[in-house]
Parts: sequence; C-alpha cells; structure tokens
Amino acid sequence: MSVHELNAIDRLVTLLSKLPGIGKKSASRLAYHILDTDVSYARVLAEQLASLHEAIRRCSVCGSFTETDPCPICADITRDAHTMCVVERAQDVRIIEESREFNGRFHVLGGLIAPLDGIHPGDLSIGQLLERVKRNKVREVILALNPTVEGDTTALYLQNLLKEGGVTVSRLASGLPVGGDLEYTDKLTLSRSFRYRVRME
Amino acid sequence: MSVHELNAIDRLVTLLSKLPGIGKKSASRLAYHILDTDVSYARVLAEQLASLHEAIRRCSVCGSFTETDPCPICADITRDAHTMCVVERAQDVRIIEESREFNGRFHVLGGLIAPLDGIHPGDLSIGQLLERVKRNKVREVILALNPTVEGDTTALYLQNLLKEGGVTVSRLASGLPVGGDLEYTDKLTLSRSFRYRVRME
Repeated sequence: MSVHELNAIDRLVTLLSKLPGIGKKSASRLAYHILDTDVSYARVLAEQLASLHEAIRRCSVCGSFTETDPCPICADITRDAHTMCVVERAQDVRIIEESREFNGRFHVLGGLIAPLDGIHPGDLSIGQLLERVKRNKVREVILALNPTVEGDTTALYLQNLLKEGGVTVSRLASGLPVGGDLEYTDKLTLSRSFRYRVRME
Repeated sequence: MSVHELNAIDRLVTLLSKLPGIGKKSASRLAYHILDTDVSYARVLAEQLASLHEAIRRCSVCGSFTETDPCPICADITRDAHTMCVVERAQDVRIIEESREFNGRFHVLGGLIAPLDGIHPGDLSIGQLLERVKRNKVREVILALNPTVEGDTTALYLQNLLKEGGVTVSRLASGLPVGGDLEYTDKLTLSRSFRYRVRME
C-alpha cells in the first residue's frame, strides 16, 4: 500500500503530462492546484473541454478554427480579398490577428512539406490555395511560415507554383528579434540578418 | 468581426491561464493542442476533472489527499508510527513518498505561519499534530518544511511546542543542491551550507 494508489490524481497527472511543455512535475503541480481550488473551477474547465470539439470547427474556406462557417475573417467583406496570408497551422491565424499588421485573408496549409516525416505537398491544402488565389484574383501571397528547413522548403515550393500565375509572393522578414542581442543570436539568424539587411534612407 | 470572437477557445484559454505557471501564450498553445488532438482526449480529461473533487478527499488522520479514509499510509501498520514527518501541503506527501527515504507517518499542516499574509498558528492543524504525537508516543518529528522565512518561523514555533514533550525534533538539511555550482548558489544557501557543514569521517 502506498500513496501511489491515489488513482484519481494519478490519472489526471498522466493526462495533463501529455500536453506540450507539461512534464510530470508540472502536471502534478497543476493537478494539486486544481484539487486545492474550489470545485467550480474544475467543473467549468471540464465543461469547456467536453464541448470544445463540438463548438469549434474548421472554416471551409480558409481552414482556421471557428464557431461559424465561414469564419468571421472570411465573412468580413471589409477585408482585402486580394492579399492572402498563408500559414502552417490554424493557431497562427490568431497570432497574426493579434499583431493587427494584416488586413487580408488567410489560408491554413495544415502543415509544412517534410518528406522525412512523410509529409508531402499532397497532404497540404495547396490545391485549394491555388484555386482561391485564381478565383479571388489575389495579387500578393504572403508566406508567414516559420523560418525553418521545412518552412523554407514549403515556401520555395509554393513560390514556384504561384509565380506562374503572375502573383507577387513575399515572405515574412527573418533576422534579429527586437530587443535581441547579437551575442545570443545563432549563426543562421545572424547570417540571414546580413543577407536581408535593410538600407537606411 | 474578428477572430477574437472564437469564444469556445477563448474561454478555455482564460481558464487554463489561471493555472500556476501557465501564462496566456502557454494556455493558448495548450488549447490549440487539445483542439488538434483527437476528441477522446478532451473528453477523458473533462471526465477526470469533473469527478476529481468527488474521488479525492482529505485523510481525517494526516490531512493528505486520498481516495480512502484513512489514507493508505495511515492505514499501513507496517510503517513506523513513532516517526512523524510534518509537511506544509498534501502534495508534499507524494514528493517525499517518491524519494522512498521515509517510512513513518505524515502530518499535513495545511500551510505555514505567515502573520503578514494573515496565517496564524490557529489556522494550521497544529493542535491535531500535538494530539497525534502524544497519543502515538511519537519519538521523532521531522519537519520537512521549505527553507523559507515562513518555513523557518513555523519550524521554530513547532520545535518550541514539541520539545516540551521530550520529542526529538529534526529538520531536513539545507545546503547546496546535488549537481549544483558554488558560483550559482545564492548567499543564504551558501551561508547555511557552511553553518550546517558535515564532518567527513
């Protein structure tokens, strides 16, 4: 007999430790915090989790998460339909929206080309992207893909497909982060910040 | 209209960001991860959360979290009843159990004396501790309290109460962590590691 037989806590810890960035220690801390907190918190959280997948679906136009279909962004006629921002995952839409830098439409690829992980162009929503670009007479496609090997590969692949249709293809700038320090910047980032240096006028 | 109207995700993010060590960004990452994962994960997690407070109660003897009352540790007659380990919180019991260093009984104080935060000795289960020590003829009380101002205050307070009954009172050693580095050790810890240095024989 030992304390390890506290099954309800153990089961919660096991479940929580499956979340990204949550190790066994953090999961244990969270579980005990929930146990220490008023029962209403656990109940409301349980309800939200239970109904999450029913409340949220994919937008049939852009592929982002939404409660309505089409999503509020695709349905918003005041947004620029001729500029399209291509992102890897649905959550990237929220990140870019919060920056308030972009007022066009989005397209969620659903991943990045990574042949070693078995992800090929056919697994991504590239056909739909080309179709939307053509139908909406999109003039510029901004590739907001992470500056990684997979992001670079996917960007090059899309650029080749899109430039045939005369579309301007651009990519988010890569370089030193604001507030960053040369000393702590990795070589590849430093190399990019030189290659794409901006002339001061 | 904006993506910020995705209420079901927003509500989950708000709830998750109330957990300790989970900021808004982490909460958002977790929420999207749950959304990306198979619906069964969210359902099982929801069930565990909903039933947690019903499944787990406080042991009426030691105060730790348990599914049965008394808890498996208090009910285990093979454990040393004359040695008692005093901890601040119920989750500390699990941490010490996992170290397999202790085979006696536990007592959960339910906090530490902190007059500035309005926590006085009367708010802790000190009366029950003294009563258990007397009834079970406890010979040694090990204070496994954090080496903080509140932990020190509480330890001194308990020591004064317990020594009157002729009980040996000890406290967990405080000093350099294993694998630690003098250079990165704070002054107070270094000072303690000198004061409580151990003679090598």
